Amino acid sequence: MKMKVEVKPASGKLGVLVVGVGGAVSTTFLVGTLAVRKGLATPIGSITQLATMRLGKRNENNFPKIKDIVPLATLDDIVFGGWDIFPEDVYAAAKHAEVLTDKDLEGVKDELIAIKPMKAAFDQNFVKRLNGTHVKEAATRWELMEQVREDIRNFKAQNNCDRVVVIWAASTEIYLPLADEHQTLEGFRKAMKENNVEQIAPSMCYAYAAIAEGAPFIMGAPNLCVDMPAMWEFSKEMNVPICGKDFKTGQTMLKTVLAPMLKTRMLGLDGWFSTNILGNRDGEVLDDPDSFKTKEVSKLSVIDTILQPELYPELYKNIYHKVRINYYPPRKDNKEGWDNIDLVGWMGYPMQLKVDFLCRDSILAAPLCLDLVLFADLALRCNFSGIQSWLSFYFKSPMHDFEHVPEHDLFIQYIKLKNTLRTIIGEETLDYID
Amino acid sequence: MKMKVEVKPASGKLGVLVVGVGGAVSTTFLVGTLAVRKGLATPIGSITQLATMRLGKRNENNFPKIKDIVPLATLDDIVFGGWDIFPEDVYAAAKHAEVLTDKDLEGVKDELIAIKPMKAAFDQNFVKRLNGTHVKEAATRWELMEQVREDIRNFKAQNNCDRVVVIWAASTEIYLPLADEHQTLEGFRKAMKENNVEQIAPSMCYAYAAIAEGAPFIMGAPNLCVDMPAMWEFSKEMNVPICGKDFKTGQTMLKTVLAPMLKTRMLGLDGWFSTNILGNRDGEVLDDPDSFKTKEVSKLSVIDTILQPELYPELYKNIYHKVRINYYPPRKDNKEGWDNIDLVGWMGYPMQLKVDFLCRDSILAAPLCLDLVLFADLALRCNFSGIQSWLSFYFKSPMHDFEHVPEHDLFIQYIKLKNTLRTIIGEETLDYID
Amino acid sequence: MKMKVEVKPASGKLGVLVVGVGGAVSTTFLVGTLAVRKGLATPIGSITQLATMRLGKRNENNFPKIKDIVPLATLDDIVFGGWDIFPEDVYAAAKHAEVLTDKDLEGVKDELIAIKPMKAAFDQNFVKRLNGTHVKEAATRWELMEQVREDIRNFKAQNNCDRVVVIWAASTEIYLPLADEHQTLEGFRKAMKENNVEQIAPSMCYAYAAIAEGAPFIMGAPNLCVDMPAMWEFSKEMNVPICGKDFKTGQTMLKTVLAPMLKTRMLGLDGWFSTNILGNRDGEVLDDPDSFKTKEVSKLSVIDTILQPELYPELYKNIYHKVRINYYPPRKDNKEGWDNIDLVGWMGYPMQLKVDFLCRDSILAAPLCLDLVLFADLALRCNFSGIQSWLSFYFKSPMHDFEHVPEHDLFIQYIKLKNTLRTIIGEETLDYID
Amino acid sequence: MKMKVEVKPASGKLGVLVVGVGGAVSTTFLVGTLAVRKGLATPIGSITQLATMRLGKRNENNFPKIKDIVPLATLDDIVFGGWDIFPEDVYAAAKHAEVLTDKDLEGVKDELIAIKPMKAAFDQNFVKRLNGTHVKEAATRWELMEQVREDIRNFKAQNNCDRVVVIWAASTEIYLPLADEHQTLEGFRKAMKENNVEQIAPSMCYAYAAIAEGAPFIMGAPNLCVDMPAMWEFSKEMNVPICGKDFKTGQTMLKTVLAPMLKTRMLGLDGWFSTNILGNRDGEVLDDPDSFKTKEVSKLSVIDTILQPELYPELYKNIYHKVRINYYPPRKDNKEGWDNIDLVGWMGYPMQLKVDFLCRDSILAAPLCLDLVLFADLALRCNFSGIQSWLSFYFKSPMHDFEHVPEHDLFIQYIKLKNTLRTIIGEETLDYID
Repeated sequence: MKMKVEVKPASGKLGVLVVGVGGAVSTTFLVGTLAVRKGLATPIGSITQLATMRLGKRNENNFPKIKDIVPLATLDDIVFGGWDIFPEDVYAAAKHAEVLTDKDLEGVKDELIAIKPMKAAFDQNFVKRLNGTHVKEAATRWELMEQVREDIRNFKAQNNCDRVVVIWAASTEIYLPLADEHQTLEGFRKAMKENNVEQIAPSMCYAYAAIAEGAPFIMGAPNLCVDMPAMWEFSKEMNVPICGKDFKTGQTMLKTVLAPMLKTRMLGLDGWFSTNILGNRDGEVLDDPDSFKTKEVSKLSVIDTILQPELYPELYKNIYHKVRINYYPPRKDNKEGWDNIDLVGWMGYPMQLKVDFLCRDSILAAPLCLDLVLFADLALRCNFSGIQSWLSFYFKSPMHDFEHVPEHDLFIQYIKLKNTLRTIIGEETLDYID
Repeated sequence: MKMKVEVKPASGKLGVLVVGVGGAVSTTFLVGTLAVRKGLATPIGSITQLATMRLGKRNENNFPKIKDIVPLATLDDIVFGGWDIFPEDVYAAAKHAEVLTDKDLEGVKDELIAIKPMKAAFDQNFVKRLNGTHVKEAATRWELMEQVREDIRNFKAQNNCDRVVVIWAASTEIYLPLADEHQTLEGFRKAMKENNVEQIAPSMCYAYAAIAEGAPFIMGAPNLCVDMPAMWEFSKEMNVPICGKDFKTGQTMLKTVLAPMLKTRMLGLDGWFSTNILGNRDGEVLDDPDSFKTKEVSKLSVIDTILQPELYPELYKNIYHKVRINYYPPRKDNKEGWDNIDLVGWMGYPMQLKVDFLCRDSILAAPLCLDLVLFADLALRCNFSGIQSWLSFYFKSPMHDFEHVPEHDLFIQYIKLKNTLRTIIGEETLDYID
Repeated sequence: MKMKVEVKPASGKLGVLVVGVGGAVSTTFLVGTLAVRKGLATPIGSITQLATMRLGKRNENNFPKIKDIVPLATLDDIVFGGWDIFPEDVYAAAKHAEVLTDKDLEGVKDELIAIKPMKAAFDQNFVKRLNGTHVKEAATRWELMEQVREDIRNFKAQNNCDRVVVIWAASTEIYLPLADEHQTLEGFRKAMKENNVEQIAPSMCYAYAAIAEGAPFIMGAPNLCVDMPAMWEFSKEMNVPICGKDFKTGQTMLKTVLAPMLKTRMLGLDGWFSTNILGNRDGEVLDDPDSFKTKEVSKLSVIDTILQPELYPELYKNIYHKVRINYYPPRKDNKEGWDNIDLVGWMGYPMQLKVDFLCRDSILAAPLCLDLVLFADLALRCNFSGIQSWLSFYFKSPMHDFEHVPEHDLFIQYIKLKNTLRTIIGEETLDYID
Repeated sequence: MKMKVEVKPASGKLGVLVVGVGGAVSTTFLVGTLAVRKGLATPIGSITQLATMRLGKRNENNFPKIKDIVPLATLDDIVFGGWDIFPEDVYAAAKHAEVLTDKDLEGVKDELIAIKPMKAAFDQNFVKRLNGTHVKEAATRWELMEQVREDIRNFKAQNNCDRVVVIWAASTEIYLPLADEHQTLEGFRKAMKENNVEQIAPSMCYAYAAIAEGAPFIMGAPNLCVDMPAMWEFSKEMNVPICGKDFKTGQTMLKTVLAPMLKTRMLGLDGWFSTNILGNRDGEVLDDPDSFKTKEVSKLSVIDTILQPELYPELYKNIYHKVRINYYPPRKDNKEGWDNIDLVGWMGYPMQLKVDFLCRDSILAAPLCLDLVLFADLALRCNFSGIQSWLSFYFKSPMHDFEHVPEHDLFIQYIKLKNTLRTIIGEETLDYID
């Protein structure tokens, strides 16, 4: 397939506003991006900065870097800002997070100190284990949202930005099923104005504000937030791209690689037990059953969607899938995920696969933030609006409307991402037949 | 892409001749296929028997079974035979292998007893740890090959077969680098006739004989065998498909899934340590350093080819990759592979991934034999000749000529396999863009 | 130390009454004991049947078998009986449990069929996930207990037993903290008579009945049961040995080996995370939070008692210890325990130890049942009464009165067990100085 | 048992001379000891510095620190020196070793810089992978030994030491079986004088020199060295304690804990597969098959001696025990050991135990060096001579003469160590009966 998209040039500054800018993921994202910009670090894990993309046939041997052929904003264009429930500057917050070494922080200390978080839109009922002090006051959710809009406008003006992207890298809110208030834009606005604090989560105020200001919104946690008809409608109306939800790192990334392996090879599955231990603020938040519920729903959907038990009842109809998350402070940000997979082979013989992933939560998430910010900005300039399913690659629960099923397979997601980029620049898509 | 291939119909019997028909993999393949045919077992792991293939766009929701739309031979068409260095019938051999339960063997006992191996073409210098008693005698390698040809012709006639496929599921031979004798068909024939026992391995006699008889040849071990210019030439001349080499099961299958995950996500790699323990005859053979060398070469190439260190020196230029195989009798056929992967993330921070695979060697390999036999026969009827790179999906070291690089990524291999099938039946190939 | 105990001879039959005789542990215990008696199996895991014991100095090289020098009852003396909430005979129950192969059951089928459980003393409030049909009816707990006494007397008479031992191998009851009713024998009797169904668990009725009938009582679950001053008093009054609680198998056995290793080497500990997956009835029962609480308390105490953080605050004062049990049906009785231990070495450098134990719950517990039955009977004949702390070796939560601390270290427990046996037969105890 | 030993007081300075003082283990030992002395670190892992020892009955609750009741030298008494094949001072060497953080080195930088290694007695034929430049020249092994004696005397005089201890923390030499030259002191001296470079390893020159100078000698590698009749004789003649060999850390420490667990519980064993990966100089040396052979012999003996297959043929007669060491540079000093244990339970049912130990080689060994130095000095002052079997606790291959079998069980070793200390100070030994 071959077509060409009209892309506006990436001229001027790109404001990147991070919700939860003092958290572990955010500070790791900011420190790294600034360090890379100064030549102090390598942006490992970032597709936009490192990956190449084959053009033409395999034997033409043409593998340019994506950033050299796709019109992305550069790191030098970026201006960082954000909100947080604690008033610390980003240097202090990064020290606090204990993810990066002191040496890595020193290299960009001045830049980090200069980034002071704006007051957060926060409601402790949605994140019970956190107790923020640096928070906005507002009579209604609508007013709260208006304050966020004002923040965005001010930031854009003060920093002379051409465009702004808003990314949520803050905590998981409690589980909120889709309700009537989320079905239509009109009903949603009404609920905000009536200050329906049960159905309108703070994260929704950020998302609405971003869209209203013409800024792409990226949801990194499993919060409902933009994953509702009201927001889909609004983002299309405003011609703004949105994407989410829940950054796909660690254990779920592995699942979306191993489950396709089983299916590709037509190996059966009896059970999958996933447990992990982590000791950072994220772990603490998820120790609350209500927040965990949101995460669990996000994590559980993956396997079924990939394995298609309706197509393969003999292989996948009786899978026992369990996910456990354990707050375990000794490890801090170093998450460890342990998966036990009970698979079934030829004639029904059982086998076991065990995976122990000693990973680092924020180290895995940071490059995703960078890529998403740059691709969301690209999407905006391509005039793409609504859900960006070509960015499913980055999410545990790729958003999708009621007519589509999500794609969870990491490799199909990646082909889709790259073939979309090829289309944007007017190149042939690949089908790997030669 | 869309095109249509002319395929001869799968009429009549399909002879399946297995080299090493009394081994663990072979007997598991035969028992399972016969049991499936009688409705006693499910062919888990087999693409040809279970997999579906999407036709059209994702939202058309059209997922027919491959065997219902691709003109494959059916299981009822198959007649089994083979060679072995021990004279036991397949029932006795299967008992001996200790892979399957007695109950599973009983169901097809009569059929198994009826399959008596023909005498093997064998030379202990090529498999030092085995001591066969049921072997051919021949003055030269050429004569040895002629005896195998005669076996094939006799089998075909006696069983009234329309077509025959030959598959090697026997042991790994010692390491043999490509030599002058293997470069041209003429030179190769000369070496056989001159009885060059150093450069002409017994496996080559089987391969040559098969091709000469118009039978596709499948190489399941890492032996040099058909992976040489002389054989490529011969198979094209005879219009016969060949494929290999080394069935991709267990640890290497995992590698070709995990390495693409790293690359897809642009995560770096410092080292990869793979060790496994196994106690079957395969383990015993590989305890000999010369046979291990052949296997090691096959296993080591995988990672580099997938990761393309020449394109990504900052991520992959200094990988320390080590593979160890350990003969460990307590486990019998139940192989356990343990991989330790030292990966590198954002800003150079190290992480570790450990995979413990308690698998079953023959259970994983058996469905590959079935698929390869049916696909090789399809290729023959499609008039495909020479190396079948669309079957790379099944091999640790996919064969390729000097103009091509092999594809090791399991998922790209699978897309290629399915898009080839789509092409054969005249359907659109997929690029996953929607 | 050297002394000699007066031991009554093991004459006549020994009745072994098992509470929960149709469960996985019980049936495995019975099948194995009967098979060993017929020479069909080896009693692996049993100290009484296999272990030797050094007498004299190391270089005297005198290692007789324990059963040859300690006056234990023999397997031929044993007559089995018991209670269960399901009416199936032990053969049917053992099939149901799916622990042992059919072949192993066939060898003792007739003996198993002959063992029909008596109706159980049961109250679903104490084991919420089970729904028994074969249960006693009684107006009060006292009456329930009297029915059990009658069962014991009848069994003893009908089978012409010289002595009886009662062992609990049934499920974990809900968590019950020590209350006023458990403090004195008088108060306890009063509560039984007043039918205090909150404080008097069914397991207590069995224990009281056993002691009243002069039968040693062994508590294999973590239930409060005999672990209370009222029962200590009663058992001393009746001159009956009691012991418990919670068979030490799998993960906790490992802990009581690994924690002593750390302490012996003065290595510090930051955290210990234990999780396990199991799919048998025990797993189902423990899926109920109230039953899990009882188990958790039993499992958590181990590490602290061994490591003595009060003596070693610099090493052990801040241990984060977490225990998780997960019901996971695909594994049935094959429990898998995964421990992650964060240890600390020289100058505070962190290390990790990970242990994955693919064990079998009932296979590990069965030999403990046999040993405990024989040792409890020995204790009775030695005139030992009350808590048998020399049997701590077999329990996760060794019972102890308020003046003593429990010993959890598996090796110290074993030395204590053997030195007690040496004392019983009038041999020198060992201090390993030469 | 109770007795009292006459102990000379620990007056004056104690010289500690380390062979291989610039290696990873040695520098970690020195840095840590100096840091502890300055209050900058905790001597985790050291019995002499941290452990307590129960005196009297359990309920007397008397647990004084060993260093408070046993007359050990203090850390302030120690003066460090040593030999190395590289001329770097200990600060540079410690940097090079990459075990400790820069921050930890800075605290004792001046002290470390002051320690310059003396030239080593070295012969590359005994450690093929190393290439030393800072080595002694001598016409014969005897002369080489005399140079070492002179070094010891000079060091003692220059540093005004009351006593000296020599400890080998250098590399593993090639495998050397016991030969005629090692049988008698006379024959051994003759071989040294005749410069028999095949049978007299450099390590023997150090050991002989130490003993000749009245200094205890500790062998931390598996080298033959002092483990021969000639040296036993010499050390008794000179009234000097010797001990060895091969520091028991990591995987073998675990084995001597897990094998006793199996035996204590009478669980059978089918196979034990141990592999480890490490990337330090030790790993590089052991990559040479001749050095590995020495290590392998040391590691393999452990299990058999503990399990006593001659007493328990039904459990332990057919153990398949395999040990593999792999040089894997990405990990540097962070060794990872992976053990797979195939155990057997009740009625022969198989189970598996897998242990993954992410340890740090030098961090585990350093406190052993400190303890051994202090205990060897104590032994000297107690007038103990020859092999110190009460220090077996610290060694993989505890030395023993032909009349004794070694004790490998870590817990029995520890009881022996502590009961010996109790004896030295005139306290009752413990038998744990109460």
